[in-house]
Amino acid sequence: MILERNHAGALALAARERGIGCFVVMPLNSAQPKIEAVRSYGAEITFCEPNAPARESTLKMLQERTGATFIPPYDAVNTILGQGTALLELIEQAPEPLAAVIAPVGGGGLLAGTAIAADGTNVRVFGAEPAGAADCAQGLADGRRIEHVNAETIADGLRTPVGKLNFPIIQERVEGVIVVSDEEIVQAMKLMWERLKLVVEPSGAAAFAAIRSKAFQELDIKGPVGVIVSGGNVDLSKPLPWI
Amino acid sequence: MILERNHAGALALAARERGIGCFVVMPLNSAQPKIEAVRSYGAEITFCEPNAPARESTLKMLQERTGATFIPPYDAVNTILGQGTALLELIEQAPEPLAAVIAPVGGGGLLAGTAIAADGTNVRVFGAEPAGAADCAQGLADGRRIEHVNAETIADGLRTPVGKLNFPIIQERVEGVIVVSDEEIVQAMKLMWERLKLVVEPSGAAAFAAIRSKAFQELDIKGPVGVIVSGGNVDLSKPLPWI
Repeated sequence: MILERNHAGALALAARERGIGCFVVMPLNSAQPKIEAVRSYGAEITFCEPNAPARESTLKMLQERTGATFIPPYDAVNTILGQGTALLELIEQAPEPLAAVIAPVGGGGLLAGTAIAADGTNVRVFGAEPAGAADCAQGLADGRRIEHVNAETIADGLRTPVGKLNFPIIQERVEGVIVVSDEEIVQAMKLMWERLKLVVEPSGAAAFAAIRSKAFQELDIKGPVGVIVSGGNVDLSKPLPWI
Repeated sequence: MILERNHAGALALAARERGIGCFVVMPLNSAQPKIEAVRSYGAEITFCEPNAPARESTLKMLQERTGATFIPPYDAVNTILGQGTALLELIEQAPEPLAAVIAPVGGGGLLAGTAIAADGTNVRVFGAEPAGAADCAQGLADGRRIEHVNAETIADGLRTPVGKLNFPIIQERVEGVIVVSDEEIVQAMKLMWERLKLVVEPSGAAAFAAIRSKAFQELDIKGPVGVIVSGGNVDLSKPLPWI
């Protein structure tokens, strides 16, 4: 079984398994293994400049040419609900009931989906965000969504500001967002590689870093805590971040 | 849940969970994360020179001092049977019946155990061995166990010659041992890191390398093939082997 945690990779793989065409817009500076994975699943990649206007105009041209349906990576109802299924699977597989779950927050689809999936269970929901792109935690404190963020963090998958649909869901249903430093993220990432034998990128280690933090420990949660690990694209031809 | 695939680490963890003392003899040149894992599980480590006589005399002294029971890493009935339980779990978890299974072979405990566990199922059993320490494949061809091997392979966990108990079990129950080059092992290892998101050491990638080989593909096995992945101790402070 191939696990594909990246949005583009997951869509390319799902489309191939169903015999559907798949067209992916990716920034020119995307990580090489991400590009190779998407390509190997048979999707057609169109590269664009790494900024929002270029992404949108490239997407528009692509849709006009192919008639393809746009599947947004986080700020859309079906994407949010789909991402929330990770918690449903986790609840099913866990040997005992979870007391809490924690998910990383960038665009917020995964965290909002997790919170919706937790509805009606007794699972408390938390988010984890890097200090260098803590727009969600800040937005929750301010009572309004922060639309732009000057992201400076090693967790490149979490640099996006929280989406319009996602923010109010998080506001209503998430108990708190734990902010972690890049140093804590890198330490957590190394520990996950060494002990859990999991190749995770910094974004994928953020939630694990958060549960190791003093802020989370002080919550003194009794019972098992589920950690959503999302993001395993690491350019293995480059030195690892702790070297 | 902590997965511990290393013999010393697994014993240290199991002992801690049961509140039993654990004493481990390790060669001085063991990988740092392996040492740290064993130590963090609360076992007492005694280091020795990296050769068989030193290992045995250190073990003897340790047993005299502590009265501990020796649990050999591969050439003992209970160890073989314990290692074979990996296949039982795999059969239980696989969504459809396995047509075959492949396990790496160094000392041979895992492969012999796998073969015993496959008894009475329709699962065909294969081994995977590095070309630079292919004493098991050679022994099968010659019809007798090779006792010494001048191992030269990146797969350091598979350098040991096959044990006395293990060889006849393998001879009787294993259909064949696929020999793979270090280059094939490193390629397989990189692919496992990139796509399966698994931190495996070269020894842990040997079986995956074998199923990708021409020799295995030519067997033309119909149905799912189980791959036993054993060994995830990589010194992450050093450059990765494909760099």
